[in-house]
Amino acid sequence: MTNRVVLAYSGGLDTSVCIGWIAEQTGAEVIAVAVDVGQGGEDLETIRKRALDCGAVEAEVADARTEFAEEYCLPALKANALYMDRYPLVSALSRPTIVKHLVAAARKHGADTVGHGCTGKGNDQVRFEVGIQSLAPELKCIAPVRDYGMTRDKAIAFAEVKALPIETTKKNPYSIDQNVWGRAVETGFLEDIWNAPIEDIYSYTANPATPREPDELVITFESGVPVAIDGRKVTVLEAITELNKRAGAQGVGRLDMVEDRLVGIKSREVYEAPGAIALITAHQELENVTVERELARFKRGVEQRWGELVYDGLWFSPLKRALDGFIETANEHVTGEIRLSLHAGRAWVTGRRSAVSLYDYNLATYDSEDVFDQSLAKGFIDLWGLPSKIAARRDQRA
Amino acid sequence: MTNRVVLAYSGGLDTSVCIGWIAEQTGAEVIAVAVDVGQGGEDLETIRKRALDCGAVEAEVADARTEFAEEYCLPALKANALYMDRYPLVSALSRPTIVKHLVAAARKHGADTVGHGCTGKGNDQVRFEVGIQSLAPELKCIAPVRDYGMTRDKAIAFAEVKALPIETTKKNPYSIDQNVWGRAVETGFLEDIWNAPIEDIYSYTANPATPREPDELVITFESGVPVAIDGRKVTVLEAITELNKRAGAQGVGRLDMVEDRLVGIKSREVYEAPGAIALITAHQELENVTVERELARFKRGVEQRWGELVYDGLWFSPLKRALDGFIETANEHVTGEIRLSLHAGRAWVTGRRSAVSLYDYNLATYDSEDVFDQSLAKGFIDLWGLPSKIAARRDQRA
Amino acid sequence: MTNRVVLAYSGGLDTSVCIGWIAEQTGAEVIAVAVDVGQGGEDLETIRKRALDCGAVEAEVADARTEFAEEYCLPALKANALYMDRYPLVSALSRPTIVKHLVAAARKHGADTVGHGCTGKGNDQVRFEVGIQSLAPELKCIAPVRDYGMTRDKAIAFAEVKALPIETTKKNPYSIDQNVWGRAVETGFLEDIWNAPIEDIYSYTANPATPREPDELVITFESGVPVAIDGRKVTVLEAITELNKRAGAQGVGRLDMVEDRLVGIKSREVYEAPGAIALITAHQELENVTVERELARFKRGVEQRWGELVYDGLWFSPLKRALDGFIETANEHVTGEIRLSLHAGRAWVTGRRSAVSLYDYNLATYDSEDVFDQSLAKGFIDLWGLPSKIAARRDQRA
Amino acid sequence: MTNRVVLAYSGGLDTSVCIGWIAEQTGAEVIAVAVDVGQGGEDLETIRKRALDCGAVEAEVADARTEFAEEYCLPALKANALYMDRYPLVSALSRPTIVKHLVAAARKHGADTVGHGCTGKGNDQVRFEVGIQSLAPELKCIAPVRDYGMTRDKAIAFAEVKALPIETTKKNPYSIDQNVWGRAVETGFLEDIWNAPIEDIYSYTANPATPREPDELVITFESGVPVAIDGRKVTVLEAITELNKRAGAQGVGRLDMVEDRLVGIKSREVYEAPGAIALITAHQELENVTVERELARFKRGVEQRWGELVYDGLWFSPLKRALDGFIETANEHVTGEIRLSLHAGRAWVTGRRSAVSLYDYNLATYDSEDVFDQSLAKGFIDLWGLPSKIAARRDQRA
Repeated sequence: MTNRVVLAYSGGLDTSVCIGWIAEQTGAEVIAVAVDVGQGGEDLETIRKRALDCGAVEAEVADARTEFAEEYCLPALKANALYMDRYPLVSALSRPTIVKHLVAAARKHGADTVGHGCTGKGNDQVRFEVGIQSLAPELKCIAPVRDYGMTRDKAIAFAEVKALPIETTKKNPYSIDQNVWGRAVETGFLEDIWNAPIEDIYSYTANPATPREPDELVITFESGVPVAIDGRKVTVLEAITELNKRAGAQGVGRLDMVEDRLVGIKSREVYEAPGAIALITAHQELENVTVERELARFKRGVEQRWGELVYDGLWFSPLKRALDGFIETANEHVTGEIRLSLHAGRAWVTGRRSAVSLYDYNLATYDSEDVFDQSLAKGFIDLWGLPSKIAARRDQRA
Repeated sequence: MTNRVVLAYSGGLDTSVCIGWIAEQTGAEVIAVAVDVGQGGEDLETIRKRALDCGAVEAEVADARTEFAEEYCLPALKANALYMDRYPLVSALSRPTIVKHLVAAARKHGADTVGHGCTGKGNDQVRFEVGIQSLAPELKCIAPVRDYGMTRDKAIAFAEVKALPIETTKKNPYSIDQNVWGRAVETGFLEDIWNAPIEDIYSYTANPATPREPDELVITFESGVPVAIDGRKVTVLEAITELNKRAGAQGVGRLDMVEDRLVGIKSREVYEAPGAIALITAHQELENVTVERELARFKRGVEQRWGELVYDGLWFSPLKRALDGFIETANEHVTGEIRLSLHAGRAWVTGRRSAVSLYDYNLATYDSEDVFDQSLAKGFIDLWGLPSKIAARRDQRA
Repeated sequence: MTNRVVLAYSGGLDTSVCIGWIAEQTGAEVIAVAVDVGQGGEDLETIRKRALDCGAVEAEVADARTEFAEEYCLPALKANALYMDRYPLVSALSRPTIVKHLVAAARKHGADTVGHGCTGKGNDQVRFEVGIQSLAPELKCIAPVRDYGMTRDKAIAFAEVKALPIETTKKNPYSIDQNVWGRAVETGFLEDIWNAPIEDIYSYTANPATPREPDELVITFESGVPVAIDGRKVTVLEAITELNKRAGAQGVGRLDMVEDRLVGIKSREVYEAPGAIALITAHQELENVTVERELARFKRGVEQRWGELVYDGLWFSPLKRALDGFIETANEHVTGEIRLSLHAGRAWVTGRRSAVSLYDYNLATYDSEDVFDQSLAKGFIDLWGLPSKIAARRDQRA
Repeated sequence: MTNRVVLAYSGGLDTSVCIGWIAEQTGAEVIAVAVDVGQGGEDLETIRKRALDCGAVEAEVADARTEFAEEYCLPALKANALYMDRYPLVSALSRPTIVKHLVAAARKHGADTVGHGCTGKGNDQVRFEVGIQSLAPELKCIAPVRDYGMTRDKAIAFAEVKALPIETTKKNPYSIDQNVWGRAVETGFLEDIWNAPIEDIYSYTANPATPREPDELVITFESGVPVAIDGRKVTVLEAITELNKRAGAQGVGRLDMVEDRLVGIKSREVYEAPGAIALITAHQELENVTVERELARFKRGVEQRWGELVYDGLWFSPLKRALDGFIETANEHVTGEIRLSLHAGRAWVTGRRSAVSLYDYNLATYDSEDVFDQSLAKGFIDLWGLPSKIAARRDQRA
């Protein structure tokens, strides 16, 4: 029986060529799998047909936007996940989503190998392959660009020789990846890290400098999940989509950073994530109101490690799963409303209210309703500072 | 011999009354010490005279702005110190500066007690008293507002009865603390956390929504220290002051948050810290370029703990000192230039360059200069993912 | 109506006197509550009667040994909880157990206050009071020794004057606390930290130096729970009890350390915890076999924080609860058998087997069955070391 | 000009064969470098001659025992470094020592490559190669066993055909690595993790079960450095050597564990490290007496990360260096004397004294000298527990 390879298919030049390239290199039949995580562009049926036209023996397409929003973006929101305190893990979140579909397809179609179009110096190859190994340790992975020398020039030549139904002339100077949670732009003139981004490269966000009226909205969370905007019930996908639009219209969520790739190098990345940044901003402040201090302090470390794991391709790892449980528990009481202002590239909170708030007006106020017993402070301070004081005495002696 | 009390003196109503109040309560002589950390307002000589007029037996004033900038704000910058990922520790940094002067004065004047004007429910009482215990474990601490029932109303009555040379009529509805590193506003209508701040409460920052031209500047760092702006050499104090002005003019650095006080309650705070936020933004990105990945990842945890310690009044603690050494080492190579844009409430980096950069164009580029050996990736990925893969096999079995 | 105070009652001199002392000081009726967590000594009915004879209006006793073992010791075992890497939290675990019973009794009997016999410089007062506040924030706490000047001498005098049915002559030179999980000894000549403990102070452990035959046993764990010893099914309580006996007979589990109390001082403590140490030793090694590397590494930090929280009286805190979830998940696969040797004060593992082991003989062996693909190593090493290498190049340049 | 390879040479069969094997495979001249880190066995001159007899163009030998003790073992002691809370990093510490000598030799002899005899599935290949890359990023690394298929059988055949002056018949069933800091034994029947170690495999330690008299000694530390034993001044090397002998004679320091290798697998290892375990035991307790609580708590996390880095081959990494600074600062006051008992496989502390102790008898005692102000406790407890109490109130409401 002929071996079968499941290929992560985007509909673009590279993966269209991969279909035939893999077949030639391995003699295997190729099954193309395209997963919609909100990247936009062509409709799934067009992509499916192109895969078959390019030589795939089977082609599967899946609208995974709701799954992506609820099972991948939502945990990231609960974790306030920002790699290096900045990057909301846009591509890093979509890879495990796609991996799940690839593995399901491999099992359905009896494939023993999964292929993807990544190069050998990025993070995504790790995310695909470690993800696949973690869900289906019996599957092999291949990457024609990395493993079979499929350069861009050779891909174009291949497409032309084979007359593949895909355009080979248009060359985007940037490498772009986008989905519901955001958009990543890299390479081109951005590789000179002194160069500022130009307005051209943005697509999810309007120019923050353009004068316009501010927008203000109220987001309702239940246990960390955004459930309503301005009182209208929303699904997680709708919440992200609406905030992508409204925060994007205000230029919110542009990021420009040098980041540490897992493969050991630093790279320059530009991101747009208006919905993600707006939601995380609101969620963080609601946590400030509803999460107890020591839990909040420890959660920061958990959030950092969670972000590193997801960035590093370890979505399906045992540690990631254990941290998820912690984060879920910490979000139990993150319920209430946040009023958020959006303007000129900024999202900021101006009000918060919650039935399960830990902010206690009567303890906090300096007004006449004050019930805080100030006489407790002296004892607290003296014992709190005692270890430092004893050390100070020793240091004076020494 | 009469006991002597050194009092942290601001020149305002509360601490002016404290002079006499302490004298009455304790029978001690009061020495007033005023420290300029950039809070603005009256000149030091005026304050000094008022202290004497209010009954202090001695009055000392010190311009500690340079000391504050170099020994307190600069370490915070190197630590990217943001308590709860937001608050640049404005008041928390000034307290240990003042404590140093109080302790020096106590020793000079033979005082056995230090007094301050804080209430019994805030953080500053802890910072004062633990700081004093840690520098001079032999000194006692008193706080008339907390310990001797010196309420606002009683203070006003006292001032009027004693005809103290201080205005008693003007009542600011907010509690305000400000210095070179920023400004804190609390209480009043802000105690209802659903209320948005009004434009009125701000002083260091212009309204971000007002249309104006953006500002752009280049900050030069040497080992984490800002040493030049737009090529002009600056001291740390000048760097902060210039950025307070320029970033403040663009509305940068406003913060509105519910925060966890050390005394166990949550409170609502509004801050302005244009210079601090601009400098930290620039410094963080230069770290992204010049600090190795694992060092950077660990440093985040150190930064958080550093911020908690300083917030919690443990500036002079053994752990804080040990973390300082780590942070100093991590900043060794944080040398280079950051181009920063300021506009409409935002500070963002658009360019970075450094002679000690770890960003390697030839490793990072996808262009023809690429020297990254992609064949290394396969082995890396397989071993990187091996623990997850082995666990996955087990989990399938189990 | 007369106020009622629930008192944590041990049956000893101090708390027997407390009954009358509290009544005199507060005018309240006192309800004595004695909880058996395995401290041994008199039977509960004797204790109950003495409480009544000493003036309690009600007396409740509860055998909480099973509850203590399953709900307090077991989580500590799963956390490998050793405060300062040594102390298995003997007293720290029993306090929240007792607190639960005190709160239940307070609610049942309509008490508004809980009393305990702790002094004002130990950890246990914090564990009692913070525990009570966290379960029943409406209750007040009192501690006659600390709050009403009930010194030892006064207590003896009170007992004699009132002719309380309790011995006042025997004075143990040490302060002792013991339960199923271990035994703590402090004060007396041990307060000189250069003094070695003497054989006299031990009760749970035989002299390790006495020549005797070693003992060997096999402990079976299921998801972190010890379920059998040498193939015989055991409850958690039975497991601890049997190991207390067998490991104790070999002198296992003696600890002598200077430790950091929450109230800010260092104290010298001697502990015996034969069962706890034996079980933790076995459990740790089974984790080595069954828990994935990154999960195991992160768990160490969680274990430390868990131990600090429990030591610091925060058993019922939100962070403790969230960490419990993490620890529970991490223990999911901690299933298998550990062969443990016990001799001359040591417990050590000599064998481990598990159906859900992550140790893979075929990957680990250097024998002919080896399936590890060594060609993967080169790529792994080069990318693993790349950040250090790039930094090294920079440092040579700089 | 002929290329030159520097080879890490042990004098044993594998690396003796490597000399010719590398020459044949690469055409390069081989320079053998043997480094004495206390592994014992043949004298350096014998080893040097054998290298030349086996075809090396140059052979260098170095007695690095003092360097190893002071620059590698001592930092590990200050870090209380125990990978997975157990393993004192015996081999992990010697590799960077050897790397330094290899790099120096490569530079001296103009070599462009460094070779070592490790396999492709252990940790040591990573430690060698990442170490070399980090000291000399321009050097290449080769490992004949891993890269050129030099199996054991082929090595023996090669040695016999070439008549190398090295014994090929004796086959140790175990893989052994030893140095001043300890000894590692693996493979053979130990690969079945249910098998107990047999007495045969031990060499640094006597059987703990053999009846003998205990040993007791006093170790003096200055800033974390062991400087005297029983009042006699010692160098670090002498301290380790003496304790290897005395603690080894009591059977102290045997370890048997399943450990997580960096290359992603679990392996079973048996260690003997009598001196290391005795010194770390003493050092930890002196820290308990002299290091402030919060510094001690944070240091545990630093120690863990330090151990992971060293285990993972990142000795020369930027993070390791930054952590060294922290550890150095934390050891500043670790000065004093520890009385240690050694017997039957155990090392335990029975006394500690220090002129810079933070243990304060007057604060700690329950005797009449007590100066601790118990009235401070109430305020401390109430504010310490306030966040939990507020959360409890909320949870009751919710």
